[in-house]
Amino acid sequence: MTANLFTDHLGLAAPILQAPMAGSQGFALAAAVCEAGGLGAIPAAMHSPESLDAELQALRGLTARPFNVNFFCHVAPTADADALARWHAVLTPYYRELGLDAEAMPQGPGRTPFGSAFLPVLAAHRPAVVSFHFGLPAPELLEAVQALGCRVWSSATTVAEARWLEARGVDAVIAQGLEAGGHRGHFLSEDLTQQMGTLALLPQVVEAVSLPVIAAGGIADAAGIRAARALGAQAVQMGTVWLCTPEATTGALHRAVLQSPSARHTALTRLFSGRPARGVVNRLMRELGPMHEAAPAFPLATAAIAPLRAGAEALGRTDFTPLWAGQNTQGCVDVPAGTLTQRLIAAWHGASD
Amino acid sequence: MTANLFTDHLGLAAPILQAPMAGSQGFALAAAVCEAGGLGAIPAAMHSPESLDAELQALRGLTARPFNVNFFCHVAPTADADALARWHAVLTPYYRELGLDAEAMPQGPGRTPFGSAFLPVLAAHRPAVVSFHFGLPAPELLEAVQALGCRVWSSATTVAEARWLEARGVDAVIAQGLEAGGHRGHFLSEDLTQQMGTLALLPQVVEAVSLPVIAAGGIADAAGIRAARALGAQAVQMGTVWLCTPEATTGALHRAVLQSPSARHTALTRLFSGRPARGVVNRLMRELGPMHEAAPAFPLATAAIAPLRAGAEALGRTDFTPLWAGQNTQGCVDVPAGTLTQRLIAAWHGASD
Repeated sequence: MTANLFTDHLGLAAPILQAPMAGSQGFALAAAVCEAGGLGAIPAAMHSPESLDAELQALRGLTARPFNVNFFCHVAPTADADALARWHAVLTPYYRELGLDAEAMPQGPGRTPFGSAFLPVLAAHRPAVVSFHFGLPAPELLEAVQALGCRVWSSATTVAEARWLEARGVDAVIAQGLEAGGHRGHFLSEDLTQQMGTLALLPQVVEAVSLPVIAAGGIADAAGIRAARALGAQAVQMGTVWLCTPEATTGALHRAVLQSPSARHTALTRLFSGRPARGVVNRLMRELGPMHEAAPAFPLATAAIAPLRAGAEALGRTDFTPLWAGQNTQGCVDVPAGTLTQRLIAAWHGASD
Repeated sequence: MTANLFTDHLGLAAPILQAPMAGSQGFALAAAVCEAGGLGAIPAAMHSPESLDAELQALRGLTARPFNVNFFCHVAPTADADALARWHAVLTPYYRELGLDAEAMPQGPGRTPFGSAFLPVLAAHRPAVVSFHFGLPAPELLEAVQALGCRVWSSATTVAEARWLEARGVDAVIAQGLEAGGHRGHFLSEDLTQQMGTLALLPQVVEAVSLPVIAAGGIADAAGIRAARALGAQAVQMGTVWLCTPEATTGALHRAVLQSPSARHTALTRLFSGRPARGVVNRLMRELGPMHEAAPAFPLATAAIAPLRAGAEALGRTDFTPLWAGQNTQGCVDVPAGTLTQRLIAAWHGASD
């Protein structure tokens, strides 16, 4: 029972999984984690098939160990001109403040859902694990991924979602507690009151399904790993903890926030993409309210934020930067990712850190 | 270091603390927990000094062991006639549906804050622990409680609250994670985005203060107790787990909900008191939205709900019943509270349950 999916089948030194974090990391972090004995992950949500192929080539140049590729599997919305106009109206004063041209406010999706165009990339690189966020892709796509020999995981934020995933044949469920940074993975309901803290969600998912359960959300160190194991997790997936390693692509301003007391106050916000995601509260979240209704459907809120972010960051300000982080940044350290991975592996095996 | 405040000073068999639950329990539950070696608690929020005195006399007739008395320490609001009128307008259709006289909608506070009138009761019964929710009472009241020899605890829902309490001389901090049932204890900010899951909050509070930290929120069984210990808790406070014991005064309809799958969906709601508190989602929460703004300031929302609750419960319906529960009802069992206490004590000491 003890984690053999992870250690026996995947050959990990311990079931320490690096959470895929689109925008904050690529092959360098994933390779370092893999080489140290954990499972590194490549976030595909901001990739085209071509750029993902290049990313995986780069990864495989650095490691021959198993890795995880993660996709978002939302249904791409049709752009609603009125909704976008409302969003642009909300952002226009900020464009003016930064001297940007509000008439040229960009549009576009900002995130790519999984689709058949990615299958040749997966066929070429054969990731050991393909994980999904926001449910699963259409059955024929799921079958195509499974036919490549990839194990399939997905995130559950409720017991109902865990059961839904099990019924559709996933190999493991990631129980994503409310503490987790980045995008919430919910897909059966948009009612956020259904989202649970890790300490409550994890044991209920463990009881509800007979699959291996991966704990995610709020785990930052040896203590969190021990807690997750006590609650029945067969693996832990950690994201925030890697954000300050040199291999991550986290911006300098974001890193500074993560290592400051202001990182204690995160919130779920839909301002940066259109879907609730957890990040450190910043000016835009404070001024508009983190769940402002004018942000259009995921992922259409993204594009118009980019120039604001770039403009403010050039002035040294995080006013418009999505400062993704979970509710526990205690583990954010500026040490090489391989060293951190080794520490977390030792923590899993019971050594103190 | 290991929990000597709880085992040495209070003489507990293990630091298993029964959370005070106004409306769902009284002396019978507290006495059973105390007699079995845990720390039972009497919730004072719905008591007058006279009725609390009677309650503590009844408790002391059943046990000579240490016990905890808990007070709310909110500032009683002045009733705002317009706000109450808005609330009554929202509830009037429900009064009509149940054939109740909306003109006779009751008013009144529903909860009593701690005040000097309670000091003689404490002096007469000398509880080992006096705990507070919503911060602390005024300094002179706090000193008067301390002068009686009572240890003082209070709830922290953020690191800032834990530090605030430590600076004011409490003997232990209860780290109340977002999973917890009943009223949130926040007092420095009403911004609910600051509230954290237990897995994230607990280790941060443990790091931030040098006091013993009590874990609360989502702990339901041996696995939860092990997790809390792994995260640095010196004690656990559990509430929901006791609600189905015969000694609790939980109503039959509430008990049935707790043992049904619908208990999986709780939400923070201000409909039943005016302050956010976690309970199972029911008809009123669904129809008004759990955080409806017309509910007046705590605790003034309470009174007008009571006839609706009574009327619906008489018909076997929980439409208007505050179904307090945490996010993990896995531990709700109909066994005597003493037996449950013994199981939890064994779980603390490492036996499996």
